[in-house]
Amino acid sequence: MKSLKNIFEPKSIAVIGASVTIGSVGNAVFSNILQSNFQGAVYPVNPKYNSVMSVKAYAEVTYIPYPIDLAVICVPRNAVENVMKQCAEKGVKGIVVITAGFKEIGGAGKKLEDEIIAIANKHDIALIGPNVLGIINTQKEISLNANFALKMPRAGNVAIISQSGAIGVVALDYAHQHDLGISKFVSIGNKAVIDESDVLEYLIDDDATKIVTMYAEDIGHPAKFFEMANKANAKRKPIIIIKNGTSVRGAIATHSHTGALSSSDTAYDALFAQCGVIRVETLAQLFEYAKGFTSLVQPRGNRIVVITNGGGMGVIATDSAERNGLEMTTFEPDTIEALKKALPPTANIHNPVDIIGDADAQRLNNVLSIIKKDKNADAIIVSILPTSETDMDAIAANLCDFAKANPDMPILANLMSLEPEPSFEQLLEKAGIPNFDFPETDIRVLAAMIKYYEWIKLPHVEVTKFEVNKNEVRKVLDTIIKEKRIHLSEPESYKILGAYGMKAVDYRFAENWDNTIIAADQIGYPIVLKIVSPDILHKIDVGGVKINLKDENDLKKAFKEITESIKNKKPEAKIQGFLIQKYFTEKGIEIIAGANGIKGFGSLIMFGLGGTFVELFKDVAFRLAPLTRRDAINMIKGTKGYQILKGYRGQSSYDIESIVDYLLRLSQLVTDFPEIKELDMNPIKVLDDNKGIIVMDAKAIITDEKDISPLKQKISVKKETVIA
Amino acid sequence: MKSLKNIFEPKSIAVIGASVTIGSVGNAVFSNILQSNFQGAVYPVNPKYNSVMSVKAYAEVTYIPYPIDLAVICVPRNAVENVMKQCAEKGVKGIVVITAGFKEIGGAGKKLEDEIIAIANKHDIALIGPNVLGIINTQKEISLNANFALKMPRAGNVAIISQSGAIGVVALDYAHQHDLGISKFVSIGNKAVIDESDVLEYLIDDDATKIVTMYAEDIGHPAKFFEMANKANAKRKPIIIIKNGTSVRGAIATHSHTGALSSSDTAYDALFAQCGVIRVETLAQLFEYAKGFTSLVQPRGNRIVVITNGGGMGVIATDSAERNGLEMTTFEPDTIEALKKALPPTANIHNPVDIIGDADAQRLNNVLSIIKKDKNADAIIVSILPTSETDMDAIAANLCDFAKANPDMPILANLMSLEPEPSFEQLLEKAGIPNFDFPETDIRVLAAMIKYYEWIKLPHVEVTKFEVNKNEVRKVLDTIIKEKRIHLSEPESYKILGAYGMKAVDYRFAENWDNTIIAADQIGYPIVLKIVSPDILHKIDVGGVKINLKDENDLKKAFKEITESIKNKKPEAKIQGFLIQKYFTEKGIEIIAGANGIKGFGSLIMFGLGGTFVELFKDVAFRLAPLTRRDAINMIKGTKGYQILKGYRGQSSYDIESIVDYLLRLSQLVTDFPEIKELDMNPIKVLDDNKGIIVMDAKAIITDEKDISPLKQKISVKKETVIA
Repeated sequence: MKSLKNIFEPKSIAVIGASVTIGSVGNAVFSNILQSNFQGAVYPVNPKYNSVMSVKAYAEVTYIPYPIDLAVICVPRNAVENVMKQCAEKGVKGIVVITAGFKEIGGAGKKLEDEIIAIANKHDIALIGPNVLGIINTQKEISLNANFALKMPRAGNVAIISQSGAIGVVALDYAHQHDLGISKFVSIGNKAVIDESDVLEYLIDDDATKIVTMYAEDIGHPAKFFEMANKANAKRKPIIIIKNGTSVRGAIATHSHTGALSSSDTAYDALFAQCGVIRVETLAQLFEYAKGFTSLVQPRGNRIVVITNGGGMGVIATDSAERNGLEMTTFEPDTIEALKKALPPTANIHNPVDIIGDADAQRLNNVLSIIKKDKNADAIIVSILPTSETDMDAIAANLCDFAKANPDMPILANLMSLEPEPSFEQLLEKAGIPNFDFPETDIRVLAAMIKYYEWIKLPHVEVTKFEVNKNEVRKVLDTIIKEKRIHLSEPESYKILGAYGMKAVDYRFAENWDNTIIAADQIGYPIVLKIVSPDILHKIDVGGVKINLKDENDLKKAFKEITESIKNKKPEAKIQGFLIQKYFTEKGIEIIAGANGIKGFGSLIMFGLGGTFVELFKDVAFRLAPLTRRDAINMIKGTKGYQILKGYRGQSSYDIESIVDYLLRLSQLVTDFPEIKELDMNPIKVLDDNKGIIVMDAKAIITDEKDISPLKQKISVKKETVIA
Repeated sequence: MKSLKNIFEPKSIAVIGASVTIGSVGNAVFSNILQSNFQGAVYPVNPKYNSVMSVKAYAEVTYIPYPIDLAVICVPRNAVENVMKQCAEKGVKGIVVITAGFKEIGGAGKKLEDEIIAIANKHDIALIGPNVLGIINTQKEISLNANFALKMPRAGNVAIISQSGAIGVVALDYAHQHDLGISKFVSIGNKAVIDESDVLEYLIDDDATKIVTMYAEDIGHPAKFFEMANKANAKRKPIIIIKNGTSVRGAIATHSHTGALSSSDTAYDALFAQCGVIRVETLAQLFEYAKGFTSLVQPRGNRIVVITNGGGMGVIATDSAERNGLEMTTFEPDTIEALKKALPPTANIHNPVDIIGDADAQRLNNVLSIIKKDKNADAIIVSILPTSETDMDAIAANLCDFAKANPDMPILANLMSLEPEPSFEQLLEKAGIPNFDFPETDIRVLAAMIKYYEWIKLPHVEVTKFEVNKNEVRKVLDTIIKEKRIHLSEPESYKILGAYGMKAVDYRFAENWDNTIIAADQIGYPIVLKIVSPDILHKIDVGGVKINLKDENDLKKAFKEITESIKNKKPEAKIQGFLIQKYFTEKGIEIIAGANGIKGFGSLIMFGLGGTFVELFKDVAFRLAPLTRRDAINMIKGTKGYQILKGYRGQSSYDIESIVDYLLRLSQLVTDFPEIKELDMNPIKVLDDNKGIIVMDAKAIITDEKDISPLKQKISVKKETVIA
């Protein structure tokens, strides 16, 4: 196990490539470490100098007569490999390679990177980089700023992991301007050895870190990330992430609905949703959330009170609360009575409370002490504009006292000021009262917190494991591999689904006309007739499907039409035979369920109602396999189609329980057989409640890529209780 | 006509209630006017003083021996009426009543407000307020800051209209902190006489104002606002608005789908969409847009180039461009060739261009001069992080030179700095280069501008007027009024639709069984049988509809079932008879169209596809009557259902032209007869292209409220060209 203790908590550091040349990276890094009041010893390494900034220099790291925990490397690219070898020889277990020009430029750079990876792995070295800014640890006992561009930030409990050095600069700049305290900072660059999940693993046990913020362009190992995120949840450490990077949608030709609708970005959304990670879109939001999470106590519920001295702010707050799913508390009669006494007649004594423009700090205090007693107040937002009566410093001081006396009540503020950096901001910061520009920000932050705390409160759910017939599936897939095909025929698809307990509509396969008649008689009219050919994926497009055939005459006509249509439209297709299915007339609704293997993520499971729901509104939900029962339920509930399934406008409800069952079985199938690249059940007919569901058509494709690595979930063999 | 010239451009001002008491409103207002270097003369009016701040005071406004253009009133509430009378006597034509305690507190306040309104109207006084902060005019020739809370902002070309005084304070604070120049500011408070549309009318001709920003909780006169917004468009003055205030949805019981889906907020959205007003959700956005519009030249198109020295910013910009409908330009081969020569090998020469961390001002310049020649570059975003090589002042100066040399190229920047108020910001501001925190803001602003300029570029469209039979409608409505009903029966609804050229499916009305048989024979089987009763609005709910009746036997059974069902479920209903309709089996798709009178707005017209489209996805579009042809087309195109109407996935297209026709006819009907409160055509069957559409069911309700005031559109009798 490569420990990040050597990276973040070294007792001794070698800066290899330390330099006296102002403006050079080696100079900046060494000088930053010296200036950061690092509590250990730092040694410059550079054969050109006897000393760097008055500190005795060594020509090579191996010459340093003391043990070295961390080496920061800023030598030219071609020297990195050799220097790494010397570090290995010296027994250095933590290395930050700041130097750029590796994998990110391809070609020779990629090769050099592979070489330093080999050295790190051989010697069990925790390697950050290459192509990074460096690292920061603000803890007093360490006090380390080992990077070439950033000043030491104020100590605090927010950790920053940035894949991009550029965004790292912006992030620390923003943190500085908004007075956000930082615990650790790391720029992880090319992630040759250590990636975000490894850093996360370290930060979970880092007492100085309470919130992890992250800028990512990709997640190296989704399964490990998932595991670490769950551990972070157990420790109540929220992870807030910007995941950027253009989607790969459209880049890959897909064969199924599921494939067409899913992308790596969908997989990221599913991943984050399944482990409670908070995804934001902008850097501003990232830090707003960080500030909220770092300051505020956990809200009891979502019923907020807004107190303002300007009616307009109350209106904005009310609108914003509705948009973000928060509720404006309705006061108890006692509260209203007390407010009536405490406030002038022109004030608004209902929520949002308007204490009007001539309010001073005392009036605000009176109102706060009334509202805190109202059992319906879960959080308070105080929005105060500067007027001739408002002494903002006094108001801020009072708010701080109130927060101290009521440690269970989340309080957010917008104390506005005409000064660029008003003195009360630090007061509020220290008292754990986030102060934002506008009430809309307070509300957005509060809503995100409530959602997070609801998520981590949920009991642990295990993955249900069904008894299935794996051998049957193995046999089908082996046949296909042997025949060097990638598409499963419709009967083959039904077979593997059947082996996992997913029932298809009654069908027969017939190779010729005579057997077709026999099959139709066995099944009973009306029937559906479909072509079966490994060369025809989209049967309807080539006239390969005829439905509602009522008797032998209809059947004969349909048989002829299909045969002729294929001859015209797809003359080269090898026809294996025909599929004869029961024409299903029972009342029901069509859904679609499928799976799509996403490189690095395992299988992404899709669910949605059929027809325009899926095609036009993209009203579908995705989760990564293996699904828990909660995942499956959340998928269904996450679509608008759920309104119809559960009985829309007094109509009867459909068999949702069976959909959950099939989604879980599908998840188990593609987890057991990662070579199933795409699988579509489209449509599945869902009958009324308790009447089951039936697959009406299915297709599947296998792959020989075996890089698929599903999320690790605890497995249970018990079946769980009924849908909520 | 009440002119706002006296308000914003007075030569002489009386401050009635001017005071020497520090902290009083009368003191603040008078002192602010003095300090603002007002270019006219200001007179304090207060019987208690001989002089206020060394300026000769008068006991009453009438005692001032000079003409007075503007009176600013800050006397106690009960004195306002009397003071107003004195102003009228003095011939003052502009008054700002700062004093609060009027309509906003109800009761006696409302009565007092009515009294001052009467005085203002009688004497043709332009009255701002009551309950306001005051006004500001930064123009050098006026230089007036007449309010009690705000400092004089920097002069510029953004006007601010705020209904709320509180938001006014926040707005000017924000403008100050973000160095946004202001032309006029006005807080309009209770809008007793002058409202936002009146101020807009004044600002349209105000050369100092190029952009109007507005905070509104309601729009007093939507029709006038619409007219003024169109005039502003003609002058290329964008209006950016935050319209807050909780929606009235659900507060009113409605009788139709259209009613249930529409609200005053829907009406506001429609109003703004129909006159190109830009609605934003947050104050931050309001000022970001203002800054963009005030600085930037009009972009030629939506193909942007991003230049950065940090790859991560390029990724963020690319994602953001996709979200906002902008396109990342693909460079010409020449551009790529030139960039390859100008940049180091590790740079990214494709868009977003990464000039990498060691770039200096010269390298950026070289890249800019290459890119400006690329004909696919419609706008440039320059996103530069501080590194050891970046001299931000030099970069800013170069950008300014570039902007000056290339006045047609919109340039936005994110020059980041670790300083709180870097010196280059003013440089950029002066050169018309908006500089935001993050590239995502640049992109959002640019997208809003492109949308606006596309809107104002559209040619003027007149409202089509059809030849109709107004008398027929009048007759039907008169009968209903005479019978003191509010609901139209189904045949009555068909009659008024028919009079305006909207065809219903063939039907007969029969009072009894004998006539029902005759009617069925005349129409021909299969038929639909429906109950007709003024007491039954939702026929299906009481078993009042039977479809697909194939012969007399079916009909007899249905007749009996309906009669019995009504007897059971609605025994008190007065049955007028039965409606016999052709059972329509032609292939088609169902849509819904309707109208709903919204107090103050006239009729809101709705369009959507039927079934789950409207019910579950609320996939509907709204516009206010009278509709132009473009409005009707935009409504249809604004729904997802449009994808189906125009022929989804190779299927045939439906008769969209007829839908446009019916929406326009519906618009004309409810405009001609504002007493039609709600009208639903649900469903309308739309046949294949050119085959027409047919109303299958309709209901309508009339009202005796006559406050409905439709938007003024130019009317044309010509029909226009075919749908695009």
